[in-house]
Amino acid sequence: MGFQLIDEDKLKEECGVIGVYSKGQNVADMIYCGLYALQHRGQESAGIAVNNRGTINYHKDTGLVSEVFDNAKLEKLEGNTGIGHVRYSSEKENLAVNAQPLVVKYKKGSIAIAHNGSIVNANSLREILEDDGVVFQTTNDSEVMANIIARYHKEDIEKAVDRLMELLKGSYALVLMNEDKLIGARDNLGIRPLCLGKIEDGYILASESCALDTIGAEYIRDIEPGEMVLIDENGVKSIFNDKWCKKRLCMFEYIYLARPDSRIDGISVYLARKEAGRALAKEHPIDADIVISVPDSGTSAAIGYAEESGIPYNIGLIKNRYVGRTFIKPNQNNREQGVKIKLNVLKENVEGKRVVLVDDSIVRGTTSTKIVSMLKKAGAKEVHLRVSSPPVMYPCYFGIDTPYREHLVGASKTTEEICEMVGADSLGFLSKEGLISSTGKGEGFCLACLDGDYPMEIPRGEMG
Amino acid sequence: MGFQLIDEDKLKEECGVIGVYSKGQNVADMIYCGLYALQHRGQESAGIAVNNRGTINYHKDTGLVSEVFDNAKLEKLEGNTGIGHVRYSSEKENLAVNAQPLVVKYKKGSIAIAHNGSIVNANSLREILEDDGVVFQTTNDSEVMANIIARYHKEDIEKAVDRLMELLKGSYALVLMNEDKLIGARDNLGIRPLCLGKIEDGYILASESCALDTIGAEYIRDIEPGEMVLIDENGVKSIFNDKWCKKRLCMFEYIYLARPDSRIDGISVYLARKEAGRALAKEHPIDADIVISVPDSGTSAAIGYAEESGIPYNIGLIKNRYVGRTFIKPNQNNREQGVKIKLNVLKENVEGKRVVLVDDSIVRGTTSTKIVSMLKKAGAKEVHLRVSSPPVMYPCYFGIDTPYREHLVGASKTTEEICEMVGADSLGFLSKEGLISSTGKGEGFCLACLDGDYPMEIPRGEMG
Amino acid sequence: MGFQLIDEDKLKEECGVIGVYSKGQNVADMIYCGLYALQHRGQESAGIAVNNRGTINYHKDTGLVSEVFDNAKLEKLEGNTGIGHVRYSSEKENLAVNAQPLVVKYKKGSIAIAHNGSIVNANSLREILEDDGVVFQTTNDSEVMANIIARYHKEDIEKAVDRLMELLKGSYALVLMNEDKLIGARDNLGIRPLCLGKIEDGYILASESCALDTIGAEYIRDIEPGEMVLIDENGVKSIFNDKWCKKRLCMFEYIYLARPDSRIDGISVYLARKEAGRALAKEHPIDADIVISVPDSGTSAAIGYAEESGIPYNIGLIKNRYVGRTFIKPNQNNREQGVKIKLNVLKENVEGKRVVLVDDSIVRGTTSTKIVSMLKKAGAKEVHLRVSSPPVMYPCYFGIDTPYREHLVGASKTTEEICEMVGADSLGFLSKEGLISSTGKGEGFCLACLDGDYPMEIPRGEMG
Amino acid sequence: MGFQLIDEDKLKEECGVIGVYSKGQNVADMIYCGLYALQHRGQESAGIAVNNRGTINYHKDTGLVSEVFDNAKLEKLEGNTGIGHVRYSSEKENLAVNAQPLVVKYKKGSIAIAHNGSIVNANSLREILEDDGVVFQTTNDSEVMANIIARYHKEDIEKAVDRLMELLKGSYALVLMNEDKLIGARDNLGIRPLCLGKIEDGYILASESCALDTIGAEYIRDIEPGEMVLIDENGVKSIFNDKWCKKRLCMFEYIYLARPDSRIDGISVYLARKEAGRALAKEHPIDADIVISVPDSGTSAAIGYAEESGIPYNIGLIKNRYVGRTFIKPNQNNREQGVKIKLNVLKENVEGKRVVLVDDSIVRGTTSTKIVSMLKKAGAKEVHLRVSSPPVMYPCYFGIDTPYREHLVGASKTTEEICEMVGADSLGFLSKEGLISSTGKGEGFCLACLDGDYPMEIPRGEMG
Repeated sequence: MGFQLIDEDKLKEECGVIGVYSKGQNVADMIYCGLYALQHRGQESAGIAVNNRGTINYHKDTGLVSEVFDNAKLEKLEGNTGIGHVRYSSEKENLAVNAQPLVVKYKKGSIAIAHNGSIVNANSLREILEDDGVVFQTTNDSEVMANIIARYHKEDIEKAVDRLMELLKGSYALVLMNEDKLIGARDNLGIRPLCLGKIEDGYILASESCALDTIGAEYIRDIEPGEMVLIDENGVKSIFNDKWCKKRLCMFEYIYLARPDSRIDGISVYLARKEAGRALAKEHPIDADIVISVPDSGTSAAIGYAEESGIPYNIGLIKNRYVGRTFIKPNQNNREQGVKIKLNVLKENVEGKRVVLVDDSIVRGTTSTKIVSMLKKAGAKEVHLRVSSPPVMYPCYFGIDTPYREHLVGASKTTEEICEMVGADSLGFLSKEGLISSTGKGEGFCLACLDGDYPMEIPRGEMG
Repeated sequence: MGFQLIDEDKLKEECGVIGVYSKGQNVADMIYCGLYALQHRGQESAGIAVNNRGTINYHKDTGLVSEVFDNAKLEKLEGNTGIGHVRYSSEKENLAVNAQPLVVKYKKGSIAIAHNGSIVNANSLREILEDDGVVFQTTNDSEVMANIIARYHKEDIEKAVDRLMELLKGSYALVLMNEDKLIGARDNLGIRPLCLGKIEDGYILASESCALDTIGAEYIRDIEPGEMVLIDENGVKSIFNDKWCKKRLCMFEYIYLARPDSRIDGISVYLARKEAGRALAKEHPIDADIVISVPDSGTSAAIGYAEESGIPYNIGLIKNRYVGRTFIKPNQNNREQGVKIKLNVLKENVEGKRVVLVDDSIVRGTTSTKIVSMLKKAGAKEVHLRVSSPPVMYPCYFGIDTPYREHLVGASKTTEEICEMVGADSLGFLSKEGLISSTGKGEGFCLACLDGDYPMEIPRGEMG
Repeated sequence: MGFQLIDEDKLKEECGVIGVYSKGQNVADMIYCGLYALQHRGQESAGIAVNNRGTINYHKDTGLVSEVFDNAKLEKLEGNTGIGHVRYSSEKENLAVNAQPLVVKYKKGSIAIAHNGSIVNANSLREILEDDGVVFQTTNDSEVMANIIARYHKEDIEKAVDRLMELLKGSYALVLMNEDKLIGARDNLGIRPLCLGKIEDGYILASESCALDTIGAEYIRDIEPGEMVLIDENGVKSIFNDKWCKKRLCMFEYIYLARPDSRIDGISVYLARKEAGRALAKEHPIDADIVISVPDSGTSAAIGYAEESGIPYNIGLIKNRYVGRTFIKPNQNNREQGVKIKLNVLKENVEGKRVVLVDDSIVRGTTSTKIVSMLKKAGAKEVHLRVSSPPVMYPCYFGIDTPYREHLVGASKTTEEICEMVGADSLGFLSKEGLISSTGKGEGFCLACLDGDYPMEIPRGEMG
Repeated sequence: MGFQLIDEDKLKEECGVIGVYSKGQNVADMIYCGLYALQHRGQESAGIAVNNRGTINYHKDTGLVSEVFDNAKLEKLEGNTGIGHVRYSSEKENLAVNAQPLVVKYKKGSIAIAHNGSIVNANSLREILEDDGVVFQTTNDSEVMANIIARYHKEDIEKAVDRLMELLKGSYALVLMNEDKLIGARDNLGIRPLCLGKIEDGYILASESCALDTIGAEYIRDIEPGEMVLIDENGVKSIFNDKWCKKRLCMFEYIYLARPDSRIDGISVYLARKEAGRALAKEHPIDADIVISVPDSGTSAAIGYAEESGIPYNIGLIKNRYVGRTFIKPNQNNREQGVKIKLNVLKENVEGKRVVLVDDSIVRGTTSTKIVSMLKKAGAKEVHLRVSSPPVMYPCYFGIDTPYREHLVGASKTTEEICEMVGADSLGFLSKEGLISSTGKGEGFCLACLDGDYPMEIPRGEMG
């Protein structure tokens, strides 16, 4: 019907979460502002649940945060504790019923739960629960989690969430709320980010630190892999099991997914990108007149490339700021229309120039092809494509929407073939080593989509 | 914000159900037409679920059938078996999430379930399930039923529904569908109606026979109290437990709730009403010039009254056919505005006349007061109010929305006091005996709202 | 896409108007209530304009009154004078831009104007205006009227409207408002109705008196053919030109269009219908067991038929009260579906009976055919169709939407042929003389659609 | 209710126009794409009118282009010639009725007309027309224009538009279409831009050349001040009157309004901005560590400042890309919330740094104050604000929405006072001479908002 205009050639995050605990303030406004800041992590649905003295109210629907909520809806969400969620989803599953948070009642009261990531053993857990007579109303893994918690909630919620974490395999950042507590948890590998902040009379949990800045909260620290935090009137309590934990943060959070003004696990996303650009310049130098970026995600790396190479950075492509989520497919034959609506070449800066075009990643290669063609038509003498990450070659099972392997250009073509396909005069991908070093840390990342080295066993059912 | 215009002074039904099994046709259209015919049983939400070769798709939302569905939505509901529901609800609970049918997945597959009525031990069943770790996402009793079925579905669905019926106390007409069967069931007392019809290549279950007429189906019979019917490619199979069953159909189905063109348990609703009118004329004769009715529900009884008394029936009140479900409250002081929007006096027929005004029931008495006043202002010399049922004195626990007892004018005032309150020149209620005899059967009805003789124990939690 | 369910086999009114002048009250609420009462005259769009101390604000849109307005919209319409309109329209023209009232600014200030009826020389007037450079933004005749008033408004608005009336040919009931006056006018033949009522501190004009009843206004009189009334702080001023005026009220207002609780030009619509039924019984007696009506418009005549014939009146068809304006076309072959959604036979009353079926009019004959068939299927032994008006044989040029002549069954078939077509056992139409006498007046009606005797010359362009 | 998030402290353009003439293609798609590219010129309403063999169809409504149109609506707009419009408006006037294009019928047929700019003698023209009996339905100057054309269209449309241009005073870019022609015109001073492009089998007119790029059209030239172009099957015909014309393009098109990838009157908007940044560096040098911009409009100048000064350019503020047009006002006291939702500081780049912050213009100064504060809180050692235009001191009468003079910080405060107010360590505005020289041309601009030297007499009524 229409086609997605934004970033159809990029890897997509699955969701963002936020939770706020306050002693005296209504938190819905803060969660709303925080979800705004996390909107880049999911534009398909949004939801907020708040705890009003033991009663959990919520509103969630498909759409952007600005579309799902208005003043009237926020005003109805009174309460001092709350959680929120923005959701990315494939078209088929984008039903209001699958929006998060999920709110359920059970013998110990009510809980609201929201998570991002991907539980690789969700189907198995679902089957076990079904054997015990559980019915499911959604295809959402949060429903599996809620059922496990309800079952294990014999003594206290802390134990129940602990047991849940023992059962879950995969990646997740989890926020959960019952009548008196806000709980956050991060998977044992810390694949998905989650950080803790301080507000005046309480605390905040969020997928990215930019949400803290927007609310005016102070960043405290990132939640550790395998850590659960319980926040209530007594403050923040941290719980670790003895179990095996090690950090394997998704490298694509740095490459593309997170906002550049976020810090994740102590690393500035912006600096990591800029350093990647620098490393790229070292690995793939070229004699050229100008460094430009594919806005906005390639800009940090382009600035790094420019700094290292000494070739001046400048604007080469102008992005239309009013492009909505979908665009009506024009009937014209011109295949470049979609990209042209989003991007226009700044002819003045590229005409007659040898251009270094920096992008953060290449997935299918279709957008790159169109951009190189636009630049050449605008008079660029040469176009040297530089990509600040290695080719994506393997599917992700931990919450990133990767195309089928045959559509991953990096999986089927050599660098030379890709260069020819996109029509560039040269092409350089940043090496895995360069990428790792750009973070300033030697290890602690999941790079499976680049090298196939998955940090945990993937259930066969998931590998189809 | 607005106020309900239609029948705010009447008892309200809680919901209507329909189910269709066909060997080869898409059934969504038929269910849609049937729900149209059942719309008087609930205007708050509507839903249809269909079984498309093992996959259950559904659409449900708040609103009238004509608002919830359009061509595009019906076309997506492909499948040869389906169930539908229209819902009445109090304002607070009118959330899309509480709309029926409820569709759940469990170990044996998927089921869709919808019911009307009221399960008086629902809270106890919910607690037992919660003790076993079940989580609930709605306040709908269908969710309790689905969980019980899922738990008991060890061998086949028939046994599971049988066990469900053993556990349920209260009133219900239930339709349920899994991958290969359509199932209907009626509570042991047959408080809520459910009938069976035949379509070309299959069968239909519906709350009232008028839905069969609309679809062009042939009426076969009513489902018996305590009966379960299983409909599949082998036809209709009927199952009775040995358990205690006796007929206690809600008398208000005949008095007000059902459509006059329906037949319930072998009794024509229209004829029952007309006979009640005749009986009313015998019990409370009066010398008058004209018999008029409160349209539309009082018309059948008014015709009976006229026949018996020999006083001519005529139209005295004109009903506005375009009144929506809600009407914006005008700021005027005139307290009769609400009624005037709905009803206008046909002055020509009442001016200077001694009028017998026939209504089917009186709950709060507020509307009667306004109508009598309007008639007097229009020049009626006398207004003799005749009510074709006894005063409502007790709350219903079986699916009818009765006001608190202090608002039941019949519970707190004598007939003389009510007569004075509404401003009529005389007032007569049909006796319980007259009402029963109007059905042509001597027994088999629940009359608890009239005499307080509940056909089963009411759990204390419900009696609040 | 969908098909109109209500009355697709009836003549349709083109619109209803209302105007309220009050010294101190906000009138939007009253106009809203009045439009509710006039909703049967047009369901396609609705609008209200109010004069707030010289500034005219308005809201209008496609949809029912209850859909177009809500509390927030009414609250914005502050002002002591206002006019309102409900519109019937053919599907193509149902654009919001064509909704009325039309509000324009010109050299003497602002006016709002709304009318119903049909100006037969509108195209000629439009051309003359265009020759003078006028531009038009709608296809609405109100825009022609507004331009004429603006041009002639040299001295005062009274003269300008007077000149307008001299120029207009055709039928109209007109309400108009400027900064300090409410004006009403009726065409020289009085083809469309318009009456005057009194509210506490002001006056009301409305197409039908039922709107006065709803508001609680007192009926004063009908506006005369060719009369203009000006209402302001000095009260009501009436102006007649010397010009030729005579009464030719549209007979279909009595037959079908108006609400039975309205009085038009001193004649009760209900009584006229009942008398027509009586006359019909005299002209076409039959030996039968029961008189039933096609609800709701045939009921008054059926009661008359029953009274005169001595055959008892009873309910034979039940109308679904929840049918919306459009209904999704079911995919079934069953051609009677549309009617079945609307109407169901009350089998108890017709089975084995010889039935007199009274309808108010027959246009295409399609609905009658379906109803007779339904009655026969339900067991009626005989069905004698009686129509309380003569066959419609000629198109209307004065504001009623008549089908092309080839679709008027009365124009192409004899009574015998129609009887055979609809499948009735006998058929009788009321004679023209019988119809006229039913009003209690011997003359003063436009009967052109029945006899082709148009009360004025019809411009050739209109006769296409 | 909500508050405008985007650019509330900037001057606003009033509207953008586009027109396409094709011999054989449907043009609605192209106009839609073009309006997308012009969306920055107006986000309040959008409209498209197309000529389908002499019949003009249109759709227009309040909202963004992506909200007003969908596939179904575009498909109904068949035709080879069309015009489109995006509108900026003050809140009060943002009614659908005021959306453009305006389509009118008159004696010579139909025309559609759309313009941007401001007609300073519109009220006088309106009065003259009113004296002649013209009625107006909108407050839109396009309605005045349409009436003048209709009056003067005695021979041909060309003469009529020519007379219109003789009557109009003020700024405008006009597109107009009748049955066989597309016409464009630009005011005598060329205050608003309009350019001409070539498509395969026809021509395009648009406010900015970026619309041509998006459609894939080839830029031909800008329309000259006082020029009218008629486009039909014979190609493009240009008409100049002998009358006084000189170029006075609005300087703010270069400073802020236009997209940087547009060329206006032969000058690249991007280059003008960058040169302004260079000039700013020369006029107001400072010893600092980093040059950052207020994204996105300040970026071109910041790059220029960095180039000239040798201080490295980098990203200092991250803009949220998902901010909608309005944002629900949070209840928090934190006054910086609004800006924080839009902008976040990139701490890594400013902490401990001496920062040059480049913005394109300062109107009220409120946003600058908040940004400087955010930078300081993030650890910036010094913040030196540099503005690539002089202070705005006078209101614009030619189509730019300027606040009342008392809100123009440049009108009431000295540079020192402004510096203190915003909390910067130093502040420098580009001089008028520097600004002019940045365009590469010595003259031809309207700078009235900067120096009060209006290029034409302003009617007293407008000066209020």
